[in-house]
Amino acid sequence: MKIGFIGLGHMGSAIARNLLEGGHELIAWNRSPEPVKALAQAGARAAEAPVDVFAAAEVVFSMLADDAVVESVVLNSGALDAAKPGAIHVNVATISVALADRLERLHRDRGLSYVAAPVLGRPDVAAAGNLIVLAAGETVAVDRVRPLLALFARRIFPMGEQSSRANVVKLACNFALAAMLETLGEAGALAATNGVAPETLFEVMTETVFPAYKTYAPLITERRFRPASFALPLGFKDVRLALQAAEAKHAAMPIASVLHDQFLAAIAHGDSELDWSALSMVAFRAAGLAA
Amino acid sequence: MKIGFIGLGHMGSAIARNLLEGGHELIAWNRSPEPVKALAQAGARAAEAPVDVFAAAEVVFSMLADDAVVESVVLNSGALDAAKPGAIHVNVATISVALADRLERLHRDRGLSYVAAPVLGRPDVAAAGNLIVLAAGETVAVDRVRPLLALFARRIFPMGEQSSRANVVKLACNFALAAMLETLGEAGALAATNGVAPETLFEVMTETVFPAYKTYAPLITERRFRPASFALPLGFKDVRLALQAAEAKHAAMPIASVLHDQFLAAIAHGDSELDWSALSMVAFRAAGLAA
Amino acid sequence: MKIGFIGLGHMGSAIARNLLEGGHELIAWNRSPEPVKALAQAGARAAEAPVDVFAAAEVVFSMLADDAVVESVVLNSGALDAAKPGAIHVNVATISVALADRLERLHRDRGLSYVAAPVLGRPDVAAAGNLIVLAAGETVAVDRVRPLLALFARRIFPMGEQSSRANVVKLACNFALAAMLETLGEAGALAATNGVAPETLFEVMTETVFPAYKTYAPLITERRFRPASFALPLGFKDVRLALQAAEAKHAAMPIASVLHDQFLAAIAHGDSELDWSALSMVAFRAAGLAA
Amino acid sequence: MKIGFIGLGHMGSAIARNLLEGGHELIAWNRSPEPVKALAQAGARAAEAPVDVFAAAEVVFSMLADDAVVESVVLNSGALDAAKPGAIHVNVATISVALADRLERLHRDRGLSYVAAPVLGRPDVAAAGNLIVLAAGETVAVDRVRPLLALFARRIFPMGEQSSRANVVKLACNFALAAMLETLGEAGALAATNGVAPETLFEVMTETVFPAYKTYAPLITERRFRPASFALPLGFKDVRLALQAAEAKHAAMPIASVLHDQFLAAIAHGDSELDWSALSMVAFRAAGLAA
Repeated sequence: MKIGFIGLGHMGSAIARNLLEGGHELIAWNRSPEPVKALAQAGARAAEAPVDVFAAAEVVFSMLADDAVVESVVLNSGALDAAKPGAIHVNVATISVALADRLERLHRDRGLSYVAAPVLGRPDVAAAGNLIVLAAGETVAVDRVRPLLALFARRIFPMGEQSSRANVVKLACNFALAAMLETLGEAGALAATNGVAPETLFEVMTETVFPAYKTYAPLITERRFRPASFALPLGFKDVRLALQAAEAKHAAMPIASVLHDQFLAAIAHGDSELDWSALSMVAFRAAGLAA
Repeated sequence: MKIGFIGLGHMGSAIARNLLEGGHELIAWNRSPEPVKALAQAGARAAEAPVDVFAAAEVVFSMLADDAVVESVVLNSGALDAAKPGAIHVNVATISVALADRLERLHRDRGLSYVAAPVLGRPDVAAAGNLIVLAAGETVAVDRVRPLLALFARRIFPMGEQSSRANVVKLACNFALAAMLETLGEAGALAATNGVAPETLFEVMTETVFPAYKTYAPLITERRFRPASFALPLGFKDVRLALQAAEAKHAAMPIASVLHDQFLAAIAHGDSELDWSALSMVAFRAAGLAA
Repeated sequence: MKIGFIGLGHMGSAIARNLLEGGHELIAWNRSPEPVKALAQAGARAAEAPVDVFAAAEVVFSMLADDAVVESVVLNSGALDAAKPGAIHVNVATISVALADRLERLHRDRGLSYVAAPVLGRPDVAAAGNLIVLAAGETVAVDRVRPLLALFARRIFPMGEQSSRANVVKLACNFALAAMLETLGEAGALAATNGVAPETLFEVMTETVFPAYKTYAPLITERRFRPASFALPLGFKDVRLALQAAEAKHAAMPIASVLHDQFLAAIAHGDSELDWSALSMVAFRAAGLAA
Repeated sequence: MKIGFIGLGHMGSAIARNLLEGGHELIAWNRSPEPVKALAQAGARAAEAPVDVFAAAEVVFSMLADDAVVESVVLNSGALDAAKPGAIHVNVATISVALADRLERLHRDRGLSYVAAPVLGRPDVAAAGNLIVLAAGETVAVDRVRPLLALFARRIFPMGEQSSRANVVKLACNFALAAMLETLGEAGALAATNGVAPETLFEVMTETVFPAYKTYAPLITERRFRPASFALPLGFKDVRLALQAAEAKHAAMPIASVLHDQFLAAIAHGDSELDWSALSMVAFRAAGLAA
């Protein structure tokens, strides 16, 4: 298939290379020329401008840095107006929910298809073809590009017809990863200031927090908070003890402080008899979601 | 061996039962009598008071609710003064670092051994004998009780000679679990308010955040932040987009707000070229730990 | 003078009325017609469109809801291109720093003057002509509109030539007011849950926190933190006691939790000998400002 | 009157001096001897131990550093048992609510009176006799010591019969002051990173935030949130703009982040039509107080 690719950073280049190696014809563009040259040596054709990529390809992938770059390179370049009728644009980058909704509309208005396919994984994972892809868009379009996605993904999660849904899930995942990084930072500082090497702590944590997402997620989605196998006030107690131990060594734990306040809100709400996984309901209620 | 057990809540009862089933003689006490009766039917002997347990056993396990209960049941009951010379007290409960240090001293003063052995796992895991145990105390004492711990643990992590180290690690783990629960709550509310069922999100998350602890922990302990496979400002961008998507639906994300501020501190510190795992260093630096 | 006015909400109407009563000719526009009619009865002329206001007046005031409305009403309406040479646009609304910078440039490009004059005060204060005005822009333009500003202001603070400076100060003031509201909320909840009526507390607070801004601001700007008349760890102690008293009644105090963490950062930084006003330096340092 | 004084730090010494100058006989004790000597030169008598002070005086003032020092100096020293029948202990220091309740009980048990009289003001204010005193305790005892309090206070607020009420109010005031310091820090960093000297900002702020406590406190206590003279979403807008302007310069504003989340909770609760002073109700509701 004739495939276009716009945006050849670390991730973009790795994905484009997988498409090439899958036996497809590739026409590529990047703001700076070096990555295009590198890809050309592997058999790709270099385009002069984004508009040329859209004019030539049946399926155009884009991996651009942020909303502003998408606006300038895809929307304000006239590229969409040059696209072939029925072409599919697969956006593998993470963009805002608002821009995703707008892109979907602008493509539809021109008889084009827009597929949001943000990926999870780091460049080495991309190079190995082992990314996770969250794919959302019209079913027929997603089905058509699925074999292409499979060239760089070890798993494809279908996210429905509304393309922005894939972005919501991607953002939620990266939020959770960043929360994990900060959690590791705070827990590591708690340990280090109390005489325990972070390595020692992290070795234990990977055994415990690790499978915990799988244990707790269904309790939360099914609101299965009774019987409490670990009652909410006991969890509060431990967070308070962690804060105290950190405080004694002058280590601040801002996420633990947030937890402290959310536990109090849960207790004030009358949830002391519930399992501590009911802590998640504080955020749900604050967002106006019935618990 | 003649073993004592004090504190028969859900966890305590499950552990005590494993000790009994391991073929040991057990003398047990609990504030309310029912759990003792239940255990007596399985062959345990009921004690009148904590002091009787300490007077009779070579190794005494305790699983008491919090610092205040430990003070009243173990310290102010005269129990320690009644203990056999050379007896070992194994505290499997989570208590404060300060009390752990004090207990270690009070036992040593009386020629007794104190082993901190807080456990990770819920009551059903305890019943199945699959807990994780963090064991700290004098090597000789830990070695002596290890076969007993093995009766209810699938893995025992040695945490060194200072008993409070085990408590620090336990508290850090429970902090991380509570952070995960709140993260699931905020991420779930972000998804639900943007039209994605939390189940759908959580299915993806268990595939991604899940193994991430194993990926990121060594980057942090080895300060391996270059080259950046996902640069810190990109992570910041995604947290901002998550906050925006949530804000558009009036969903507050207090942990994401903390992340927002920590990312800014990292960028102001000049870390924009580093991998986003360097976010963890903000907490380290704030605690006075050299980055 | 021939004055234009765009945007007649509560604040806009009150200000426009003061200008009319000052003896000036007024041509006004508003998205919905009612407020224009009300003003017309007091002698103003109704304009058909924003472009007509800019075409007719020497000085145009605008009080529009937010950045998006300014973009649509002032920038995308062709109004600026219709303005008289040398006309001055006085924006009394609160807009973003980025848009203020852009407006300044767009006016300059067309030979027009842009004055940022955001106001402090509620509608009744505006009606009484007692607002505080923060005025920034080219000196000659600010001087020319000063008599007009004086018609609705009890005090005009000159903020320099760069117009966005006035917006920065306005935003900082409203941030401080919102922080005060939340502080009153948390302090009130602390009091109420501990048996003290918020009225009683607030009566005391208006006697104490009140003049405190005047006492502490110079200590901070001059970094006068020695000798400590109230040492930083003492302030920390009191915030911890407040958190404890609230916690005992299940009242969360998220701002107090932030204070807790900032105090710890100050102490870890080695500031325990300083006056507690040095707490402010934690935010300064985090922003990369040398303390 | 024969007055005792225990604890001669900066504040204690300044208050004791005012009592001496009021013509009273003073017997004083301090852990380190220097401040006692200084006071002795002004006519006071030095005591050997706390117990001697309580044995000699009709009214004993204490100004001790924290709960632990009060426990050791007043409770564990036998001082209370040596006190004259009917003696009054006036505690001018800030202690925890829990300890205040306990002290009240322990004094009553011995036929003594306990008056909590925490003070507001810095040492120079104390020296000038201009402190604010929050006095709580049995009416008859408070009445008896009022002339003594008047020797160092410009105003005495009666706080009722339960002594811990005075501590609650004192803690709430110091919390509000610390919140103000952090607010000044964040606002100053916002200004400085955006090219405005903090002095310039603070000059404006003392004109605006200053009297604001008096404006807003009654709106909150009377729940007078309609009509909205500044609607809650407008306040949210300004906090968001402040966060954006700070973010653009990499300045973190953790209190502003808390405000962001509380505004969202208010909006999700359906309060968009209310005055922004209704922001305070988020904390009230979270504490289980009906709005």
